[in-house]
Amino acid sequence: MKRADYERCRARAIEYYEKAHIVLSQQEKDNVEVAEFGLGVVDNVGLQLLTYINTDRVCAKEMVLFPGQSCPEHWHVPTNGLEGKEETFRCRYGKVYLYVDGEGKSEDIRATIPLTPVTVFHEIVLEPGEQYTIYPGTKHWFQGGADGAVISEFSTHSTDETDEFTDERVVRMPIIED
Amino acid sequence: MKRADYERCRARAIEYYEKAHIVLSQQEKDNVEVAEFGLGVVDNVGLQLLTYINTDRVCAKEMVLFPGQSCPEHWHVPTNGLEGKEETFRCRYGKVYLYVDGEGKSEDIRATIPLTPVTVFHEIVLEPGEQYTIYPGTKHWFQGGADGAVISEFSTHSTDETDEFTDERVVRMPIIED
Repeated sequence: MKRADYERCRARAIEYYEKAHIVLSQQEKDNVEVAEFGLGVVDNVGLQLLTYINTDRVCAKEMVLFPGQSCPEHWHVPTNGLEGKEETFRCRYGKVYLYVDGEGKSEDIRATIPLTPVTVFHEIVLEPGEQYTIYPGTKHWFQGGADGAVISEFSTHSTDETDEFTDERVVRMPIIED
Repeated sequence: MKRADYERCRARAIEYYEKAHIVLSQQEKDNVEVAEFGLGVVDNVGLQLLTYINTDRVCAKEMVLFPGQSCPEHWHVPTNGLEGKEETFRCRYGKVYLYVDGEGKSEDIRATIPLTPVTVFHEIVLEPGEQYTIYPGTKHWFQGGADGAVISEFSTHSTDETDEFTDERVVRMPIIED
């Protein structure tokens, strides 16, 4: 992605952390990651995230989705001989439309279908103070509501680079062009 | 502890979560735990906590310390054949005085010595946006600053009932008298 897009999204994410009253150090603000998944449509398919901690055993992140922005459908596979990642999403601000394996049809959901293929439509809506746990192997994708969303993630060790995506075009790790 | 003390601390903790702009459901507010460690001096030695999630692999809690209130010195031991608990404390509101194994003397610390024995005095001060990771086996105790503290904890599975305490009088699990 272009550095200008990266910096625009990073600055906008910081505004959302502020709306959610989440205090970050300057170093953390500088380290907010913008994932555009190699698709070149970051306002539609993208995610902003800050990793607080990621040891061999525990990971915690603070994520931002802009209004209508989606994290593409993916699932967590066993990595380095360990069970896949387990994660709990807790909504802190705004609203999250989360979709997982299970009953549900594309035409019945409240989110807008994103510019990346999605195949699971079991809908969970998270408002501030609500949370949901996703166990390894569960396909999922999620989208920010009309006011965007700030989401705390509590998980096992994070290995984003081994995630599997429905959209074969996805490149998880960002490449920033100056 | 007396139910009246329990309810007083629970209501006061909710005020601190509100000061920190942390949104909780009514059910969560009802479930805030008050630990007084069987010592009968909850305003001096005590801790309020809410467990968001505690699976076999991941735990997340939101803790409150009132001004000058201390969590007594303890450490996390291997449990059920697994390594002891690893935990990261992130200050969200107020200030935390945290003490761990290492250099430091009792007469040099900023916290007030609590009404429970403490033996480690390596001082870490956490303000909002700052965090510290405690690995298994590390003795630690911590105290709320002048405005109290709200602290997010990201950890491995929590087994409070196997914690070891310096103060042999401690009873970790609360007994509430009506």
